[in-house]
Amino acid sequence: MDQNLIDFTTQVVDECLPGKSIDCVIIGFEKQQLKVLLLKWKYEDIWCLPGGFIRKDEDMDQAAQRILEMRTGLKSVYLNQFYTFGSKKRSRLNEEVQLTRMRHVLEEIHGKNEKFVTWITQRFITTGYFALVDIRKTAPHPDMLSDRCEWKSLSNIPGLMMDHKEIILKVMEHLRVQLNYLPIGISLLPQKFTMQDLQKLYEAILKKPLERSNFQRKMLKLGFFIRHEKQLTGAANKAPYLYSFDEMKYNELIEKGIGFRY
Amino acid sequence: MDQNLIDFTTQVVDECLPGKSIDCVIIGFEKQQLKVLLLKWKYEDIWCLPGGFIRKDEDMDQAAQRILEMRTGLKSVYLNQFYTFGSKKRSRLNEEVQLTRMRHVLEEIHGKNEKFVTWITQRFITTGYFALVDIRKTAPHPDMLSDRCEWKSLSNIPGLMMDHKEIILKVMEHLRVQLNYLPIGISLLPQKFTMQDLQKLYEAILKKPLERSNFQRKMLKLGFFIRHEKQLTGAANKAPYLYSFDEMKYNELIEKGIGFRY
Repeated sequence: MDQNLIDFTTQVVDECLPGKSIDCVIIGFEKQQLKVLLLKWKYEDIWCLPGGFIRKDEDMDQAAQRILEMRTGLKSVYLNQFYTFGSKKRSRLNEEVQLTRMRHVLEEIHGKNEKFVTWITQRFITTGYFALVDIRKTAPHPDMLSDRCEWKSLSNIPGLMMDHKEIILKVMEHLRVQLNYLPIGISLLPQKFTMQDLQKLYEAILKKPLERSNFQRKMLKLGFFIRHEKQLTGAANKAPYLYSFDEMKYNELIEKGIGFRY
Repeated sequence: MDQNLIDFTTQVVDECLPGKSIDCVIIGFEKQQLKVLLLKWKYEDIWCLPGGFIRKDEDMDQAAQRILEMRTGLKSVYLNQFYTFGSKKRSRLNEEVQLTRMRHVLEEIHGKNEKFVTWITQRFITTGYFALVDIRKTAPHPDMLSDRCEWKSLSNIPGLMMDHKEIILKVMEHLRVQLNYLPIGISLLPQKFTMQDLQKLYEAILKKPLERSNFQRKMLKLGFFIRHEKQLTGAANKAPYLYSFDEMKYNELIEKGIGFRY
């Protein structure tokens, strides 16, 4: 058995809080599609969110950062806590998980680390964290125990472990609510983007088509865009305008909110 | 020692998830003030939120309902999960807790239930739930282990256990954000109320004074109020109009939101 695995299972039992885990939903936007960062288990064709456990000597927020970096290599990603999943059905040992690497781990360490078997098969409550990132600025990679680490389109998510699909749906619900009072986009879009890009992003979050001219009028009225001059090269006149965010005004709106004013 | 306490400590270790707790912030509005429901420990002058542990055989949401009813007698209160507090500084055995009943409990059971001492002194992560209720419709009472159960004004909160003050502040932050996209009031105000009552409620949540005529105009424009005729008895003509919520329209606004429209 892999020495790394033995070390990992020993450390987890000694150093981590029992029955509590963290799952990270990292959202990006590419080719006008919302995407989520997933890891593929070795051995089996099942995917999962980057997740892990909380060390006894660290804050839960710190744990989320460490887990994300450990499992995907992503650093300095601002994570937001959004929900804690506490259904009694949650267990690391449900049917799906038994089909995955965990089965191999459990079989291999059987008789070598019984404490870990007990630890990993207890009921888990997981706290979800999310981040919105610019896919172009990230270079995620799988950890030693995963096969692949990929951006998967939200409209075409592969089979996921446990309740990870539900966790992703909950983030999307959270973002839909956020759009009622906060602008979104600066961390998801490239530096320059078209109004169509922005509209596709909002439509993907709101899960409904928006009327183009109405959307553009309302967006531009918020006054936090810089419009760039078209470059006069060939067919460029027919190209749509490119915009970028006026960061200062964007942050003002984040501060004040764009929701109901009293 | 009280047999109830012995039973309680034995049950907790055997039947509850380790290191995880729940705290409930029950908010009401009375005499134009926001109030929170607090319990006072026996023996010491320290207060706390109604809280407790999650049984191994129940969902976390069920646990929150059970705990609230067990500790205050309140039933059928709709609880919303709002945040999970996972700082490593959180422990049932910090300085404040040692000054409370827990000290008495720990001293009394010392040697009788060492397992409970280990259990209760581990690091805890707590999930906060909140509810908005009509104080007039509730009749909370303390559990066997508490002295008193009282509505305390948010502007004058007594000394609280552990990080319970921080938990209350976090709910208020949550409600301030909610006001950007949701109406609030139907569960807090009596059936009939004045516009001043409503304004005081919103001012208490937003923590800032609002301009009266502007507030009334914007509120009435939302179109979810029923205005009642003044009763012509003596000085009643000078009395302000009474309003109630049009429940159907209120629920429509909850559904659609009152925030930014795309």
